[in-house]
Amino acid sequence: MAQTEEQNQRKKDLELEKEDLSVEKVFENQEVPSWRKQLTIRALVVSFVLSVLFCFIVMKLNLTTGIIPSLNVSAGLLGFFFVSTWTKFLNKSGMLRQPFTRQENTVIQTCVVASSGIAFSGGFGSYLFGMSERVAQLSSNRTDIKNPAIGWTLGFLFIVSFLGLLSVVPLRKIMIIDFKLTYPSGTATAHLINSFHTPQGARLAKKQVKVLGKFFTFSFLWGFFQWFYTASDDCGFQAFPSLGLKAYKNRFYFDFSTIYIGVGMICPHIINISLLLGGILSWGLMWPLIGNKEGDWYPAGLDENNMQGLEGYKIFIAISMILGDGLYNFFKVLGHTLTGLYRQTQDKGQKNLIPVADQNSPSSPHQSFDFQRRTQLFLKDQIPTWFAIAGYVSIAIVSILTLPHIFHQLNWYYMLVIYLLAPTLAFCNAYGCGLTDWSLASTYGKLAIFTIGAWAGASHGGVLAGLAACGVMMNIVSTASDLTQDFKTGYLTLASPRSMFVSQIIGTAMGCVISPCVFWVFYRAFDDLGTPKSEYPVPYAILYRNMAILGVEGFSSLPKNCLLLCYVFFGSAILINLIKDLMGERGWFIPFPMAMAIPFYLGSYFAIDMCVGSLILFVWQKVNKAKADAFGPAVASGLICGDGIWTIPASTLALAGIKPPICMKFLSSATNKKVDQFLGS
Amino acid sequence: MAQTEEQNQRKKDLELEKEDLSVEKVFENQEVPSWRKQLTIRALVVSFVLSVLFCFIVMKLNLTTGIIPSLNVSAGLLGFFFVSTWTKFLNKSGMLRQPFTRQENTVIQTCVVASSGIAFSGGFGSYLFGMSERVAQLSSNRTDIKNPAIGWTLGFLFIVSFLGLLSVVPLRKIMIIDFKLTYPSGTATAHLINSFHTPQGARLAKKQVKVLGKFFTFSFLWGFFQWFYTASDDCGFQAFPSLGLKAYKNRFYFDFSTIYIGVGMICPHIINISLLLGGILSWGLMWPLIGNKEGDWYPAGLDENNMQGLEGYKIFIAISMILGDGLYNFFKVLGHTLTGLYRQTQDKGQKNLIPVADQNSPSSPHQSFDFQRRTQLFLKDQIPTWFAIAGYVSIAIVSILTLPHIFHQLNWYYMLVIYLLAPTLAFCNAYGCGLTDWSLASTYGKLAIFTIGAWAGASHGGVLAGLAACGVMMNIVSTASDLTQDFKTGYLTLASPRSMFVSQIIGTAMGCVISPCVFWVFYRAFDDLGTPKSEYPVPYAILYRNMAILGVEGFSSLPKNCLLLCYVFFGSAILINLIKDLMGERGWFIPFPMAMAIPFYLGSYFAIDMCVGSLILFVWQKVNKAKADAFGPAVASGLICGDGIWTIPASTLALAGIKPPICMKFLSSATNKKVDQFLGS
Repeated sequence: MAQTEEQNQRKKDLELEKEDLSVEKVFENQEVPSWRKQLTIRALVVSFVLSVLFCFIVMKLNLTTGIIPSLNVSAGLLGFFFVSTWTKFLNKSGMLRQPFTRQENTVIQTCVVASSGIAFSGGFGSYLFGMSERVAQLSSNRTDIKNPAIGWTLGFLFIVSFLGLLSVVPLRKIMIIDFKLTYPSGTATAHLINSFHTPQGARLAKKQVKVLGKFFTFSFLWGFFQWFYTASDDCGFQAFPSLGLKAYKNRFYFDFSTIYIGVGMICPHIINISLLLGGILSWGLMWPLIGNKEGDWYPAGLDENNMQGLEGYKIFIAISMILGDGLYNFFKVLGHTLTGLYRQTQDKGQKNLIPVADQNSPSSPHQSFDFQRRTQLFLKDQIPTWFAIAGYVSIAIVSILTLPHIFHQLNWYYMLVIYLLAPTLAFCNAYGCGLTDWSLASTYGKLAIFTIGAWAGASHGGVLAGLAACGVMMNIVSTASDLTQDFKTGYLTLASPRSMFVSQIIGTAMGCVISPCVFWVFYRAFDDLGTPKSEYPVPYAILYRNMAILGVEGFSSLPKNCLLLCYVFFGSAILINLIKDLMGERGWFIPFPMAMAIPFYLGSYFAIDMCVGSLILFVWQKVNKAKADAFGPAVASGLICGDGIWTIPASTLALAGIKPPICMKFLSSATNKKVDQFLGS
Repeated sequence: MAQTEEQNQRKKDLELEKEDLSVEKVFENQEVPSWRKQLTIRALVVSFVLSVLFCFIVMKLNLTTGIIPSLNVSAGLLGFFFVSTWTKFLNKSGMLRQPFTRQENTVIQTCVVASSGIAFSGGFGSYLFGMSERVAQLSSNRTDIKNPAIGWTLGFLFIVSFLGLLSVVPLRKIMIIDFKLTYPSGTATAHLINSFHTPQGARLAKKQVKVLGKFFTFSFLWGFFQWFYTASDDCGFQAFPSLGLKAYKNRFYFDFSTIYIGVGMICPHIINISLLLGGILSWGLMWPLIGNKEGDWYPAGLDENNMQGLEGYKIFIAISMILGDGLYNFFKVLGHTLTGLYRQTQDKGQKNLIPVADQNSPSSPHQSFDFQRRTQLFLKDQIPTWFAIAGYVSIAIVSILTLPHIFHQLNWYYMLVIYLLAPTLAFCNAYGCGLTDWSLASTYGKLAIFTIGAWAGASHGGVLAGLAACGVMMNIVSTASDLTQDFKTGYLTLASPRSMFVSQIIGTAMGCVISPCVFWVFYRAFDDLGTPKSEYPVPYAILYRNMAILGVEGFSSLPKNCLLLCYVFFGSAILINLIKDLMGERGWFIPFPMAMAIPFYLGSYFAIDMCVGSLILFVWQKVNKAKADAFGPAVASGLICGDGIWTIPASTLALAGIKPPICMKFLSSATNKKVDQFLGS
């Protein structure tokens, strides 16, 4: 789901591509620097700063709802902003040795994407935190635990994160040049970067940066202001019963969170509506109805978080919907991949090296100029295949030897099987993503949970083994697709594959260090991280853990009628997807089951924020479409970044033990009278 | 002070006047309807609706801070909006018999101003409510009371409100045509109305009405939203410690009140800054310092509202500053009036009926065309002088006979003296207002408090006598200046003086009925009206009552050192005014003592709102001056009207006994812990 928000962008993109037919003609007179010169120190410094920034943002999103929009546009804009300010400053002082090129911009972009990707695939909001004691307390298996610690998470990430990168490097030419896969997000980012470096684009970019800066400041200050009134968890704007107290109890409220308004502005309308629909269906309808069966469907008087009670229904119904959606999409993308590959090989037999799969390229002379120039530069700096293979094999060996020491439950032969299969799956994911812009990393992860978990079995700590295997698998396939996207971006901006590769390695290494540190900050700063009603409920952690338990222990642990409901929702997820696909364009109004499932556990508050974002964008587009399209992403990025960055001072304050001074409390009129009497006496 | 916000308008106005030299040439082809046709039924209906609307707004402002900005622009815009919608609707249905003229617009304007003027001069926020038992409880004299009741207030207003009107009618020709007084507010309103009825102006007016409507809706909905969280007085946004709890205790906070943001946008920046300065000086500096002297300067452990304690300092220092400012301006305006009159008579001796005092009129052919046409129409429909004099004398006689029955303390010979002096004072005020745009109605009222109060003496209920005399005086002089302003408007829009006069009489009668009813709604709906910490503290009521007590009992009732401080602030008020006047234009940054005095009693919260309004306008003007100037007043009017109108449903809900469901409470972190424990157990 995190990837679908690009589909809007994609459309715009295709239009763009048609308009300015030859991009490279514009840049013809600009010399392309050598790959070493593309990797400047300033680019790496800016990448590091932005990596820390985006790690905080991604981590916050991870730990609050798990919905992560594409931050490519923000990364592109901010990278441009930082380096162009820097070069302008140096230029004035006469010390500028090298102008800012789009290749350098791509290097920054790639590095930041690689680094912040780890914050997601590192599983701090899913499998990794799902192993912790805190989450285990909420599940039915409280024995298989491994608490997060900087040491082993850092080691774990270093061991598994480079494999995905190495496994797709040899195939990049096939996917980018021979197959000419679309990679909508990567193409969009490339267009953005290209446009920044034309004179007209630079002017617009400067305006966009200004807008981004304004909303960044607003969002940051708003976060700061909110902080003062949040003395405890049920205080402040995050607990504002904006739709009334009764709605608040069922988690329907607008919580004034600018980050999710921004996310809502980036996600397509239908995603936001799906979320809200899911919230209404679950918290508005099903949970109250099931709650009425207390004592019948499940024992009365249970602890709120007991899996045998209402909580079990919430979690397992959500899981079954997520799995249904995942499975459907897995087979769909697999089908696309296989038919795509079949056609490619057929075509390749007939006409070698001539564009085929790229539907966006009428074979105009312009296009072929672009194509020739790009291909020439893409093939200039090669990364030796032996290097990639040797790297993969050696890291795999190290990993097989060391990982069982981190997770005793993970036998070396599980690892061997994973590493034998991984390159194929990584390629599948990268290929599917190139066609559909939909990375199925978490679906592959879930498959690993079930297969490895069941293989290990309950008595041998299958829960932990499953979660760890999920981690290995997710890291490999997720980085594989992310980085092939980046290669596409590099291809379209004439960045050297070698500089991209180095940048990706540096970015991944940065991510492996920054992500655990950022997670540690959150983990230490917010004591209630991972508990259901806190500011950071980490919803996917408990969902992933329960999937692992389900895989290991089977359906025996589910409360009465829950299994039936799970079947119904698993089936509906597949059915809804099927109808959506069959209807094609006319099925735009059919919701995404995956998006509907998230509020099943969390409630609708963030969905309301996101719908507000959607509404703002919708009204803005009605009023002034051109302006909304040009500045909407900048506004959204500003809102997301400002609130995201506010978490840095917020967690610093929490770490320093400084509590907010005021509690903005919401009491019913009757309770208020009691409190007034209590305070008066 | 309420009038100075027009000075900005005035400047714009003078520029306008220079630009379009002949307004009447534009309207030359339009027939001016007869005075009976200017008084249409639709105009009176719209006037009535707007009168009720503005009565609520003025009453809310009266009862919260006593700061009332000029609502002429809003009245003009809304009047235009209502009637033009009406005529458009009738036109479509083919039933339109008479087009909407600017004369009709002026009639509406006049009627609304006359009617809502009574809401101010009726003294519901000052002398009249100052007689009530509730306010008496806060003062040192708790015996001289007369509680407000619809019956006697209605009678009282009818008896005294028409005298001012009748006393200036015979002199209108002298002031408007012979003396050609400026009347900035009246002139500005006339320009507004004239501009509405040109094709270009109508387009702009429509846009302005649209903007007004938007902000009206926003402001109304915001008031509605706030309501839900205000279960008791210390709940909701009005108790938001936006600058921290400590600042809140000293009444420094932004209370999210759109009405005062709007007021701040209309008042000149320096007024808002004066208010804030006064707040900082008093609640930030003086009261804490004097509070430290508890037990030395005043007995320790007194009730919070005891006049012998800190409250006495607050009130009497505020009074002394207000009196110092009032006295200075009284003599200043008196001086202007006398020198002006002297010059007029001198000039009149030399050259008869030729424009002299109007500095804005280069004697161009255009100007003289406008002048001739306007004068011709202004002199066409006469109001017989004998009618005015007979009216004045007969109402005075009725009043002398009946008023002592309402106020036993008010002897008939006090009344006789007042009525003998009143026409002169009314003329002085109308003349001064014509020159400076500054109505000194409340200053004349204060003079009456002291003179009549002292004359009656403490033993004969001097406090009540003084307050009642203040009412009589204020009503006469206030209506006199308001209505001469309206004559100027009528003169500039070719409205017949006779239709104006009838409209004024109808408006005044409406006001005499509507105002007491509106006050009664507030009085009944909000139980704590008039108590210092409520939503409606009615600050001027206690200030006026204490002036009366001061006048009757002298300085004996003041706490230690208070008299000294009063002298200091009385002197400073005069000094600051003197410096301001001597510096002229260069003294723009010197604050107004009158404005500084208001927060002495109330605190700075509304001053902060108003400064926010000022800031918004300031930034807007920096960004886009033309747009800010064109739409600033519309935005401000929208904000003021929306929140003002919200008081209608709010008080209806309160009357129906419907309490808001939620309390948004602000607790310190420590108190919050206690409350959580209390609620948990």
